[in-house]
Amino acid sequence: MPKDELKAEFKLIGTRPNRPDGLDKVTGRARYGADFSVPNMLWASVVRSPHAHARIVKIDASKALALEGVKAVVTRADLPTGLTGEDLNLQDNTLAGDIALYDGHAVAAVAATSQLLAHDAARLIEVEYEVLPHVIDVDDAIRPDAPVVKEGAADHSVPEGSPPNVVRQLDFGHGDLEAGFEAADLVMEKTYLTEATHQGYIEPHACVGQLGSDGKGDMWVCTQGQWYIRKMSAAVLGLDAAQLRVTPSEIGGGFGGKTTIFSEPIALALSRKAGGRPVKLVMSRSEVLRATGPTASASMDVKIGMKKDGTMTAAKAVFRMQGGAFVGMSPVGEALSCAFACYDIPAIHHEGYEVLANRPKAAAYRAPGSPMAAFAVESLVDEMCRELKLDPIDVRLKNGAREGTKSSFGPKYGVIGLTETLEAAKAHPNYQVKLGPNQGRGVASGFWFNHGGETSVSVALSEDGTVQVSIGTPDIGGLRASVGLMTAETYGIPYEDVRVNVVETGALGVNEPTHGSRATFANGKAVHEAAGQTIKEMCKRAADKWGIDPDAVIWEDGHAKPSGSNAGEFEPMSIKEIAARMGSTGGPISGHHEVTMGGVGASFGTHVVDVEVDPETGRTTILRYLVVQDAGRAIHPSYVEGQYQGGAAQGIGWALNEEYIYGKDGRLQNPIFLDYRVPVASDLPMIDTVIVEVPNPGHPYGVRGVGETGITPPLPAIANAIAAATGTRLRHLPMTPPKVLAALKAAKDG
Amino acid sequence: MPKDELKAEFKLIGTRPNRPDGLDKVTGRARYGADFSVPNMLWASVVRSPHAHARIVKIDASKALALEGVKAVVTRADLPTGLTGEDLNLQDNTLAGDIALYDGHAVAAVAATSQLLAHDAARLIEVEYEVLPHVIDVDDAIRPDAPVVKEGAADHSVPEGSPPNVVRQLDFGHGDLEAGFEAADLVMEKTYLTEATHQGYIEPHACVGQLGSDGKGDMWVCTQGQWYIRKMSAAVLGLDAAQLRVTPSEIGGGFGGKTTIFSEPIALALSRKAGGRPVKLVMSRSEVLRATGPTASASMDVKIGMKKDGTMTAAKAVFRMQGGAFVGMSPVGEALSCAFACYDIPAIHHEGYEVLANRPKAAAYRAPGSPMAAFAVESLVDEMCRELKLDPIDVRLKNGAREGTKSSFGPKYGVIGLTETLEAAKAHPNYQVKLGPNQGRGVASGFWFNHGGETSVSVALSEDGTVQVSIGTPDIGGLRASVGLMTAETYGIPYEDVRVNVVETGALGVNEPTHGSRATFANGKAVHEAAGQTIKEMCKRAADKWGIDPDAVIWEDGHAKPSGSNAGEFEPMSIKEIAARMGSTGGPISGHHEVTMGGVGASFGTHVVDVEVDPETGRTTILRYLVVQDAGRAIHPSYVEGQYQGGAAQGIGWALNEEYIYGKDGRLQNPIFLDYRVPVASDLPMIDTVIVEVPNPGHPYGVRGVGETGITPPLPAIANAIAAATGTRLRHLPMTPPKVLAALKAAKDG
Repeated sequence: MPKDELKAEFKLIGTRPNRPDGLDKVTGRARYGADFSVPNMLWASVVRSPHAHARIVKIDASKALALEGVKAVVTRADLPTGLTGEDLNLQDNTLAGDIALYDGHAVAAVAATSQLLAHDAARLIEVEYEVLPHVIDVDDAIRPDAPVVKEGAADHSVPEGSPPNVVRQLDFGHGDLEAGFEAADLVMEKTYLTEATHQGYIEPHACVGQLGSDGKGDMWVCTQGQWYIRKMSAAVLGLDAAQLRVTPSEIGGGFGGKTTIFSEPIALALSRKAGGRPVKLVMSRSEVLRATGPTASASMDVKIGMKKDGTMTAAKAVFRMQGGAFVGMSPVGEALSCAFACYDIPAIHHEGYEVLANRPKAAAYRAPGSPMAAFAVESLVDEMCRELKLDPIDVRLKNGAREGTKSSFGPKYGVIGLTETLEAAKAHPNYQVKLGPNQGRGVASGFWFNHGGETSVSVALSEDGTVQVSIGTPDIGGLRASVGLMTAETYGIPYEDVRVNVVETGALGVNEPTHGSRATFANGKAVHEAAGQTIKEMCKRAADKWGIDPDAVIWEDGHAKPSGSNAGEFEPMSIKEIAARMGSTGGPISGHHEVTMGGVGASFGTHVVDVEVDPETGRTTILRYLVVQDAGRAIHPSYVEGQYQGGAAQGIGWALNEEYIYGKDGRLQNPIFLDYRVPVASDLPMIDTVIVEVPNPGHPYGVRGVGETGITPPLPAIANAIAAATGTRLRHLPMTPPKVLAALKAAKDG
Repeated sequence: MPKDELKAEFKLIGTRPNRPDGLDKVTGRARYGADFSVPNMLWASVVRSPHAHARIVKIDASKALALEGVKAVVTRADLPTGLTGEDLNLQDNTLAGDIALYDGHAVAAVAATSQLLAHDAARLIEVEYEVLPHVIDVDDAIRPDAPVVKEGAADHSVPEGSPPNVVRQLDFGHGDLEAGFEAADLVMEKTYLTEATHQGYIEPHACVGQLGSDGKGDMWVCTQGQWYIRKMSAAVLGLDAAQLRVTPSEIGGGFGGKTTIFSEPIALALSRKAGGRPVKLVMSRSEVLRATGPTASASMDVKIGMKKDGTMTAAKAVFRMQGGAFVGMSPVGEALSCAFACYDIPAIHHEGYEVLANRPKAAAYRAPGSPMAAFAVESLVDEMCRELKLDPIDVRLKNGAREGTKSSFGPKYGVIGLTETLEAAKAHPNYQVKLGPNQGRGVASGFWFNHGGETSVSVALSEDGTVQVSIGTPDIGGLRASVGLMTAETYGIPYEDVRVNVVETGALGVNEPTHGSRATFANGKAVHEAAGQTIKEMCKRAADKWGIDPDAVIWEDGHAKPSGSNAGEFEPMSIKEIAARMGSTGGPISGHHEVTMGGVGASFGTHVVDVEVDPETGRTTILRYLVVQDAGRAIHPSYVEGQYQGGAAQGIGWALNEEYIYGKDGRLQNPIFLDYRVPVASDLPMIDTVIVEVPNPGHPYGVRGVGETGITPPLPAIANAIAAATGTRLRHLPMTPPKVLAALKAAKDG
């Protein structure tokens, strides 16, 4: 169906009602992770390594345990042995084994009757360390003579004789690279560096865990995915998954960083050791920055060949990424796959190295890997456009991926909207604004795969015909509103007649987290199926009442109606009438859908940013910022815009300010928000947005998912704008005032 | 299938593992209604009428509201108008309108920052009453000149000119009554009286309610049925049902008394008025006794005709019952239907009168109506057996209902086990014990319909192959254990691999409460269906893997196995193997079943009691007590026995001690457990039990439901035993020492 026609028939989709969780959130009633307390609860405090790399010689908890009110101490010895693979990774990160692998690595934990007492007791736990040599930087870590983070950690992809910290190696591509570069008029190759950044969610990790000696446990936790918490905690502690019920709290941001466990199993282990008393564990901000999951840092070489008219002939990327001291945590595979995903290039080669370093176990962060890759590739494309005096949007339009393009990472694209975002960006007034001195404009595009994932939903009619939806993915950015709109649209009932409930693991089948931009996409599609089952059942109940064939009943505007010449004349029956009688006409009416969701639609966006660089301080001011992105379909446009703006804001922070700064001792120097500087309101203009809608044919309402792509273009777009403003190209993020100033000075001196 | 064969093939059903909620309950970790607290919570206190009947002239809350920390006062004016029928009844009982209808009727309520402050504030709310004449006793209330409880409350069943408090009249039966009595050798007619009793659950009603100005609410509550709380609270407050999420706590007894609302909507109304702050409301014991739902009191005439050989020829019952000041609350219909349910009598006539009185709104109490009816009928049958010198068990065997008997209330019985219980009672050693002076033996049978009801369940596989079951009925007597056993049996997996979760309303389709002895029956049958869906799906996944037809895969002992000559040779796949791969083989595996459950199997039991009556004090001592009851199938025999013993204990209390005692002023005189005397351990012998198993063909595991029948026979059995011990027949419960002494004296004097 052409999209305009499709849109015309929607009553609710595309409108902007209040979000159902809004009143609770603005009045402070919504309960976040730390807001949950139960009678008889203990508090936990975690002892963390002050060393980047150290052998744990001895842990003496006797002084702590001697304090009145201290109920339990746990160390690695309290966890089961024999785990392998990612389960062992998770366990190793939960509580260090023989070796502390990074500054902040948990070594022991204590539970006591108050938070203060727990902190006091933690300080009384004496840990004897033998300090080992450490390595932090990815380019240092890849050296053959680097300190070894983990012996024998490399997988089969790494050839014999490789440097000791290389644990995974990737190599893929297509086409004749050499011929491609030969066909080019201009070939450029540059190296780009990004530093580790943190998701910077406002709410620190918090949970209450309770675990009995019978192996039955309950957890209330701030997470993006209660089933992941369940599965991972069960694995780390040796529990049966079904015996652990995990209830998600409201969530003050996650951005990928809350899709895994950090300290949660510690709360359960302490509870089990303290006779089953519930244990509350709340991280401080410094614990969050030191010991949760920042993104990888990267060192990237990119080489591109281009003809004078802008046609790209060949491209090569060699990426080195660390993901902490744990195998498999760097997003180097995703980064490589995203690197050239916006382009249709005849020859591409990707090469990747995952490198261990003495840093925390990396976690997902909004489009994992894609922002770094975009920084490298989109910076270089821009540099070449400038060299060839070509409009950067025109070059992207010329080489841009389209429906049917074989993507750089393999599969052929279906219906996608990159071209539409480029055209909309070019047509936008922001692209025409005249710039003044020290001002420059940058353009970049970005990509994310999007994701379907394991999904279970249920819908159930109440006796009064109002509808509840049970979903298993926490509502981070307006999910209840979006699912409520799609549900109400499917039934043809008011938005206010639907309540969308985020339920605990014990009440629904398995769900992946709110990640991969999947929540609105997958839940919407699943709810459409589940609601469809109930609509079919309601038509049957009406048919039974009317004594006609169920096939002669259709559903329209919240009513069952007889249809067709033989159906007979009956008053349409509303959902309320059918629901009121359901107990006596067969029973409760519910629908369900469980699936690993297909039909994912890839996501593309194009950003345009104008900056002004103060030549005296090197400070970059964002003058105006435009996000154009294909939503497929914007169910609730306000929350789509919110995702666009939020992604851009985080990308701006990454581009200009945010980075993990380590001392020579391997300790994190800036584990507070005063020193790890995320953009605040005064740092940003109002971010302009254009929602492009190229409906995803794999979704009943055309949804693609909008959460991630927006963080990808800001890094290169700002670098490109700074280059335009200053004539100086920065290839190492973040582009802080000192770095910009140094670059300006070097250019002047050079 | 013959029952012995069926039983032989069970691995888990019939065993006695620990209940899954056991550890939490014995260690004090289980959270009951009053154990739930949330940040920023207020406490409620309710102002109650000190009059049995009074017009509310004025309510002045100004002094209460002037106290610092008092956040809201609600009266009836805060509830919506325009309700009708049972919704209006519920609203009238929640907060009195113009007229307070009974001692303890809620008139206003206050929310404050502490429990003490709330109580202080409640005392400052000034209510001006105009006292009206009242009536308490059912035989007083049915008089034409009785004070009128509610004008115009009678329904169409009541003829013009009837006494003003008669609100419903019943009349049904079959056969030629006159001819029946004429054919009898002995016709006796007597009148029996029972007093109101309370369910006497240990845990008082408690809840925390939160309701926003957006109409979205949450409630944590001690209840037998979270959906009933939801539906009723929504009706009383004018909310959309789906917008209210109700989470049940653990429950310290209900026995029917927690299937409805009393103060719960008050907590929500206070919350809404206090800006959405959560409000906790916990009843005191005296509030529970004065203002929740005791059972009806009854005045009953029974007439029976019997031949010399014990053959019953005709029977008639005329029952008058009050159910408080609210229409439709007396169980007179159920009582009449149960009265002769144990017998096959050619002519029966039932006549019933529901009468209003100034008492609290009656609620269900374990087999509602059946104990009173049994007291009347089984007492008279016993009296006639004595007169005719017939063995009371033989007479019941001669006239007892069997498969195919047209029941006294209409439908024909399917497979039932009354005869088997009579035979087992007769064969039991207790029936042979020789009795001494002042000792007597009583026998009585009892009946309950059992119930299926609206039922929704879900089962879901975890990634490790353990299984969770979501049910919607609180676990009162070991439900999780029983459902766990049936689930594990269905899958062929260990009991420990299953977790049964009682979930909140927002997570599942509609469920009726744990009432009508339905929970094990209905959930077991529904889980069998839902698990069956997942087994089918697992066989399909195995077939896909093996590349064979799904029909060539069978499920056995927790494994999918190829079956049949063309299936091929493959290693059986366990549930754990299939679950581990489910994300990549199609998605999560879950099953669901929603239905208004059919296949109910009626329940019969026979009790034998020996008593000794102290002729000097009139005190009755229970020497030994035997419960024989048909369970259909005892899933977990310990909890079946527990139900038998619990029913008998409550029946013994009802027979000997328990009653609502009203003063002339219409106020309850004994609203504490010191004066309202339930049996304690020292009052009772170990109660012997025999589980008869006549499997219910309407259930996959033969379950009938065992919760209710056990309370029915104790009332007449003890009266019969006292008659045997003393030669004196008591026809007015409870048979307290003073009443027995008076009867002994009257017999001696007479």
